[in-house]
Amino acid sequence: MMISNQSGISGTTGGCSVPIRVNRNTRTDPTMVNVAGIMFGPNEIGIIAGPCAVESKEQLIETAKKVRNSGGAVLRGGAFKPRSSPYSFQGLGEEGVKLLCEARKETGLPFVTEVMDTRQVEYIAEHADMLQVGSRNMHNYPLLKEVGMTKKPVLLKRGMMATIEELLHSAEYILNQGNDQVILCERGIRTFETSTRNTLDLNAVPMLKHLSHLPVIVDPSHGTGHRWMVPAMARAAIAAGADGLIMEIHYNPDKALCDGHQSLSPEEFDRLMNDLVKIARSIGREILLPQPSII
Amino acid sequence: MMISNQSGISGTTGGCSVPIRVNRNTRTDPTMVNVAGIMFGPNEIGIIAGPCAVESKEQLIETAKKVRNSGGAVLRGGAFKPRSSPYSFQGLGEEGVKLLCEARKETGLPFVTEVMDTRQVEYIAEHADMLQVGSRNMHNYPLLKEVGMTKKPVLLKRGMMATIEELLHSAEYILNQGNDQVILCERGIRTFETSTRNTLDLNAVPMLKHLSHLPVIVDPSHGTGHRWMVPAMARAAIAAGADGLIMEIHYNPDKALCDGHQSLSPEEFDRLMNDLVKIARSIGREILLPQPSII
Amino acid sequence: MMISNQSGISGTTGGCSVPIRVNRNTRTDPTMVNVAGIMFGPNEIGIIAGPCAVESKEQLIETAKKVRNSGGAVLRGGAFKPRSSPYSFQGLGEEGVKLLCEARKETGLPFVTEVMDTRQVEYIAEHADMLQVGSRNMHNYPLLKEVGMTKKPVLLKRGMMATIEELLHSAEYILNQGNDQVILCERGIRTFETSTRNTLDLNAVPMLKHLSHLPVIVDPSHGTGHRWMVPAMARAAIAAGADGLIMEIHYNPDKALCDGHQSLSPEEFDRLMNDLVKIARSIGREILLPQPSII
Amino acid sequence: MMISNQSGISGTTGGCSVPIRVNRNTRTDPTMVNVAGIMFGPNEIGIIAGPCAVESKEQLIETAKKVRNSGGAVLRGGAFKPRSSPYSFQGLGEEGVKLLCEARKETGLPFVTEVMDTRQVEYIAEHADMLQVGSRNMHNYPLLKEVGMTKKPVLLKRGMMATIEELLHSAEYILNQGNDQVILCERGIRTFETSTRNTLDLNAVPMLKHLSHLPVIVDPSHGTGHRWMVPAMARAAIAAGADGLIMEIHYNPDKALCDGHQSLSPEEFDRLMNDLVKIARSIGREILLPQPSII
Repeated sequence: MMISNQSGISGTTGGCSVPIRVNRNTRTDPTMVNVAGIMFGPNEIGIIAGPCAVESKEQLIETAKKVRNSGGAVLRGGAFKPRSSPYSFQGLGEEGVKLLCEARKETGLPFVTEVMDTRQVEYIAEHADMLQVGSRNMHNYPLLKEVGMTKKPVLLKRGMMATIEELLHSAEYILNQGNDQVILCERGIRTFETSTRNTLDLNAVPMLKHLSHLPVIVDPSHGTGHRWMVPAMARAAIAAGADGLIMEIHYNPDKALCDGHQSLSPEEFDRLMNDLVKIARSIGREILLPQPSII
Repeated sequence: MMISNQSGISGTTGGCSVPIRVNRNTRTDPTMVNVAGIMFGPNEIGIIAGPCAVESKEQLIETAKKVRNSGGAVLRGGAFKPRSSPYSFQGLGEEGVKLLCEARKETGLPFVTEVMDTRQVEYIAEHADMLQVGSRNMHNYPLLKEVGMTKKPVLLKRGMMATIEELLHSAEYILNQGNDQVILCERGIRTFETSTRNTLDLNAVPMLKHLSHLPVIVDPSHGTGHRWMVPAMARAAIAAGADGLIMEIHYNPDKALCDGHQSLSPEEFDRLMNDLVKIARSIGREILLPQPSII
Repeated sequence: MMISNQSGISGTTGGCSVPIRVNRNTRTDPTMVNVAGIMFGPNEIGIIAGPCAVESKEQLIETAKKVRNSGGAVLRGGAFKPRSSPYSFQGLGEEGVKLLCEARKETGLPFVTEVMDTRQVEYIAEHADMLQVGSRNMHNYPLLKEVGMTKKPVLLKRGMMATIEELLHSAEYILNQGNDQVILCERGIRTFETSTRNTLDLNAVPMLKHLSHLPVIVDPSHGTGHRWMVPAMARAAIAAGADGLIMEIHYNPDKALCDGHQSLSPEEFDRLMNDLVKIARSIGREILLPQPSII
Repeated sequence: MMISNQSGISGTTGGCSVPIRVNRNTRTDPTMVNVAGIMFGPNEIGIIAGPCAVESKEQLIETAKKVRNSGGAVLRGGAFKPRSSPYSFQGLGEEGVKLLCEARKETGLPFVTEVMDTRQVEYIAEHADMLQVGSRNMHNYPLLKEVGMTKKPVLLKRGMMATIEELLHSAEYILNQGNDQVILCERGIRTFETSTRNTLDLNAVPMLKHLSHLPVIVDPSHGTGHRWMVPAMARAAIAAGADGLIMEIHYNPDKALCDGHQSLSPEEFDRLMNDLVKIARSIGREILLPQPSII
């Protein structure tokens, strides 16, 4: 493959133009992304779990403990929430970030939370262990540049309307600022199918790993929109070669302020983790456990 | 769930209106589909493999032997081919069906082949072990009725832009004629993504099994369009709960008259079958082997 | 543009591969399609209207008179209906064709009706003035070949899932059998948008006329799915350069057995025809009136 | 229609949930949007034109003069450009805004330019006559809130894969901050069709005007991606009822730094404006001319 320095595009692979810094051909080994000591990459499989939104101290701490006890390696939780309607719950904001810090202290789990505005990046980067750029912001180039200027790892979710090629170009914006700690996330795309919230495009897993050296994880919660479908698609994602999963868990899904219908209960999550260990072993991998010092 | 006899629709499940005869709630157990003794259903996983098109006696017999030796249970091969252009190879027609019968005699594998025209149904049903209604004909209602009037099992592929609900309604046309031996097949849908031939919608596997009692298989060859992606997505389909797979195999993919770029070589197929055995066991299932009398 | 006789593809125009017989470059002038004396082509604009389905003698004759009196040139009406569910009204069949013949006798309007099965082609070609291949059958190649072998003009609707390029390839199947009397019809495509039944792709009008010499018409009834939207999109289609329209009209839309929600009442149709005359003149064209001998 | 104050949603119209402030039912008359004296609304039709990106003083001033002389009412030009690749031309930034101010001084045309980052809003609102929120930022809620807090009119483009309902919810974010000067813009959506850059969804015009009191304009340049298609689709948009158009014009399209293939030359734009006058009159409207004091 030829590398063209002028355009920053290094040829086309599988019909995609793949930019130079994310391109698999520019590195000998796949990239490892270090989230407070938890290593995402080609070896063990990392599980990120937690509530859609941080709602209260009790909700977050109780859910976080369940996540850790079942083998989740990283906590997720939304403090600043992008909602289609201005009248929906918009998240607890900075108060939510503080609760995430408390949950980390209590459980030892590092956490990832979403950043939506260039003006929030500095504050969130100071507290969180990983910054999430959500699906609706995958094309928000000023935000991509801003997170690229931090030293924190970035979880970049594919836009619900974005091609695999565009996801790689958005990742390139981050790497181009000097930050190569980027995890790509397939979370379902918008199609004509309406029985599921999105169409989980697991083809993206082998394709992204073919084109890029970055780790790839999957979000089966948004990718299906139905709690009862999450286990099947979580297993499928691992079998397809994903380096991790991000899932919504709530200690009481029926009372969740958002996405309860797609959140696993702690018991469902625990059962799923047992299944994932078996699937991972069947393809010669292991689920990455929480750091020994934590448990 | 209420059953309305007037409309034939028995309530809505997961946002879908599910017609009465295919509806999961109308049977105690999942349906088993019997393809010349090979049983597709909730127990073992059946693998269908073979060339996109029947091209010659040598090509077909050699490929069929490889399929059987690696553990494929049913042979596939196109005799009448639906091609976008009138100038593309249209298949060998009845000559192709005769070669499929010879391959069956030689290897003991039953075969499935596509039927495109109501006028062909009688002839093909006389010779083939299963009739395939292809993606382009999922909405061809006269054809659905005609195959419903035969006693042969039917492999019904999802239209490339058909919803899960529409697939179930098309299956209902077949069951409504008295034939309940229908296998549903997810084979990829058309979306905005262009790096893959189709977007393989594995969400359809748990959704279809949730809504219907019919077995569900997956076609990772058309679902990806890239030979190197087939193993990852075949594994993912099994992990998602599919009851089988249909894959394109060619004894010399680079010389194939159609779909060579997405056909596995015999060696690739053999390696994949070994992987599938492990994946199946990790979820408590087994790959269905060719009938003992054959091997 | 080079013409390649081997593949039947004559180069690529606007990113499309355009087959040889439908290709604009292979004819000096646009093709005129003669529907019992009504000429569809680059000059006057032809309006096809009538009920979704033939329901009864009264319904059809009364609606046909309204169509003629308001300036419609061709009557439409479904006798064999492709319905997603086997439990929906499937049309009156041959009885419906007979009623269409009666309506023609009564009003002088030629009629177009849908053919779904290769075995129906001979019968319908004997009675109808134009054969419609519907959206669900655009990829039904045996049917395309069969209508290509008749001497009757063909109204070929774009598949709801078909690209512009695929529509041209399907038309090529008809021309390749010796029948060049083909009218292409944009009728809306399936997208993620759910507030309308389909997304009417008016881009297809200038694109198809750029690539092919065949006339292009638009179906704003299926393209919107809402009666109140039909006039706006009918006007837009003419302004975009369409050579005609096909619309659903019912003498009592609220009682229609199918598609009542998208059928115009006779009064709405009459008002729309007046508007269309003005739009047509503003771009230097005229609406084609029913044959003088008729009125 | 019931107005629910709790959710901010006032019932469902045409299958859409329409929020309260943008809802047609909450105002007696359609909203007029005042862009420096140019009134967008249900009366005259306003034309916005100019280059994709501001490239140089000469390019901008020469193009702006052509726009004004042919009857364009507002100048467009990108200073901060959202580009898929970090290696593409990113716009002249503040220097571009200064050139737009010069062009306004020279021609008397007010201008609209895109804002991508909450931190730019204050600066751009100080200089521009209208703020554009581009397709990629339709879901950027902090940005929507920020432009909602200014006193400047906002041109809100539909996301390339956003539903009509989501567009209305995004507009609601702006109105909810106290700014009701919002123009909605259909600019093409992403579908499976590849011969055009996007699928221009003109259905959105009557649907948006049915659901909301806000003016609706159309962008046939991005909606087609082909210069030669722009006139046909500009005419169609007006015939469908659009309150205006936004188009890319370049004084030398073949030398444009971006989007030259979809930019009209000044001569093409002038011819098109003559056609639009006729189309507008055929539906009883007029093209809004530049302010008398200017010419």
